[in-house]
Amino acid sequence: MVKSDNDIVNSFNEERKQLNALVLKYGGPVTKRFFSLDTQAYQNGALPAKTKELIGLVASLVLRCDDCIKYHLNQCHQNDVSTPEMVEAIETGLIVGGSITIPHIRRAFKYWEALIKK
Amino acid sequence: MVKSDNDIVNSFNEERKQLNALVLKYGGPVTKRFFSLDTQAYQNGALPAKTKELIGLVASLVLRCDDCIKYHLNQCHQNDVSTPEMVEAIETGLIVGGSITIPHIRRAFKYWEALIKK
Amino acid sequence: MVKSDNDIVNSFNEERKQLNALVLKYGGPVTKRFFSLDTQAYQNGALPAKTKELIGLVASLVLRCDDCIKYHLNQCHQNDVSTPEMVEAIETGLIVGGSITIPHIRRAFKYWEALIKK
Amino acid sequence: MVKSDNDIVNSFNEERKQLNALVLKYGGPVTKRFFSLDTQAYQNGALPAKTKELIGLVASLVLRCDDCIKYHLNQCHQNDVSTPEMVEAIETGLIVGGSITIPHIRRAFKYWEALIKK
Amino acid sequence: MVKSDNDIVNSFNEERKQLNALVLKYGGPVTKRFFSLDTQAYQNGALPAKTKELIGLVASLVLRCDDCIKYHLNQCHQNDVSTPEMVEAIETGLIVGGSITIPHIRRAFKYWEALIKK
Amino acid sequence: MVKSDNDIVNSFNEERKQLNALVLKYGGPVTKRFFSLDTQAYQNGALPAKTKELIGLVASLVLRCDDCIKYHLNQCHQNDVSTPEMVEAIETGLIVGGSITIPHIRRAFKYWEALIKK
Repeated sequence: MVKSDNDIVNSFNEERKQLNALVLKYGGPVTKRFFSLDTQAYQNGALPAKTKELIGLVASLVLRCDDCIKYHLNQCHQNDVSTPEMVEAIETGLIVGGSITIPHIRRAFKYWEALIKK
Repeated sequence: MVKSDNDIVNSFNEERKQLNALVLKYGGPVTKRFFSLDTQAYQNGALPAKTKELIGLVASLVLRCDDCIKYHLNQCHQNDVSTPEMVEAIETGLIVGGSITIPHIRRAFKYWEALIKK
Repeated sequence: MVKSDNDIVNSFNEERKQLNALVLKYGGPVTKRFFSLDTQAYQNGALPAKTKELIGLVASLVLRCDDCIKYHLNQCHQNDVSTPEMVEAIETGLIVGGSITIPHIRRAFKYWEALIKK
Repeated sequence: MVKSDNDIVNSFNEERKQLNALVLKYGGPVTKRFFSLDTQAYQNGALPAKTKELIGLVASLVLRCDDCIKYHLNQCHQNDVSTPEMVEAIETGLIVGGSITIPHIRRAFKYWEALIKK
Repeated sequence: MVKSDNDIVNSFNEERKQLNALVLKYGGPVTKRFFSLDTQAYQNGALPAKTKELIGLVASLVLRCDDCIKYHLNQCHQNDVSTPEMVEAIETGLIVGGSITIPHIRRAFKYWEALIKK
Repeated sequence: MVKSDNDIVNSFNEERKQLNALVLKYGGPVTKRFFSLDTQAYQNGALPAKTKELIGLVASLVLRCDDCIKYHLNQCHQNDVSTPEMVEAIETGLIVGGSITIPHIRRAFKYWEALIKK
């Protein structure tokens, strides 16, 4: 059974929300402070949030973490990143990280398509 | 359909057992000797097995291998690691390895919850 | 429900084909040139394609990318790599990359078994 | 003997130039095409070159390659990245990549100081 | 000219101190909060500091960061880790991370020898 | 003062030999058995030693370990790998691993040049 675009995005967000609740249930002060710092790092500052989300996206791509990529695609979409901007950021990651990133790029584009069609 | 806690742990262990049989079917002497060495490295010695399993857990976390994390969570649980001990070990891994480890921590805590509820 | 050997191989190839079409739909000139370069790198030259595919297989193993491993297993199979040759290449990767590669080796052997039984 | 700021930057650039000549002497068509693609990926497009250099910087940081970091710091400096912008980009990398990136951040800031004092 | 054991340890500590001052000079609030969190993660808690330093050591080894390894060797030494305990921790890292960790183990043992002879 | 080609190769081999003695002095049975397994993995078998050394070279390149690269270049040279064969293997690694491998390729070619001129 094929998932609709809505399903792809919603099920990712839903699972992430449930599991984050579990992290905060078990995690101690180090976890909680880290989560707060993680939010702080992507706020508008000398660099706009949009640039930071693009940076977070490509850092996630070259480290090859699908969940992190999807999260930053969400954030990029909310920060008005256009499709050509997203593509060029991803291409930078492809050059830095090589063909080993390609399976993640495939899934990133599929998720992005679901986001923009949603 | 949601898996019960028993299912999560059992299906991991079952699949691991089946695939290990396949590894030993195809693998040559190098594989077999490596598997034996892998077992030896976690035995009680100057450091207790419990400490070595915590080390194996965090090494698996920073290298971001979900199957290895689950395996070492099993071993930690059998070596009487408490929930606060497991959490502090994981938090060390979070600081060393950064936010890219978070999706793995989410799944680790979910698996641990299944282990202790089992 | 258990997948047959045919299913394992076919579903991997089918999904890869569909998602590659998506990559080429969204990707710009950098992506397209990279894909062409990726093909070029594995052609017969001073080294035969077979050796290059074995190299690609082990590089994928130590970087721990299941999709890349499956792809190079396909290519190895088409280039007449025998089971003992595949196993020895994988074992080199196991020694270089350590126990963290074992879950990927499990899945690699399962995929290889499907390929040769197909 | 302590190197002056000029020396730090110049010796990096000089060694890089000499060794790149060696890469092009030995490298075949795949190498040459890859180098050209590498240049293309950082040109102005949907995203400005400045943003791409910041992305390249952080990708290099989380993958922990000092030479790549220095190269992108050079490029950032030439693209009018300010110190606070560079710092915020680096901090994004610190959060994504964790404390393992700190030794590289130390050397990055030392190199940046040499660049801006030069 | 060969460095004495004192020199190896002192020059590492001295350079680290100087560069950390630079990190705090340039770094913003995210950096400063991360550094404080990094210290917090290794305090005595459910797990003793000694165990956390051993974990930090092996995490640094499998991620292959010489500076991080030296730092945690310092901390292990101050937390009364014995040579056989250090060796068994390192051996766990060797099995998890494979032969690619060996050059770092060589340098780790050399640094440890300098520490205990100092 | 510039090192001669002889110096580059000899000083690498000499330092490696000295530090390996240190590893065997401190290392326990796990280390010693791993070292023996590491040797075994590169022997002639279904695949010739030459192919295994090329695989070891590229695995070291994509994992970005200069010492491992130099060691396998030594072994490739002793197993009669030609310059074009070495180059094509390296180029496979460049495509798999991306631009982050380039600084290591620069140093690999410099070391290879020293080896063949020696």
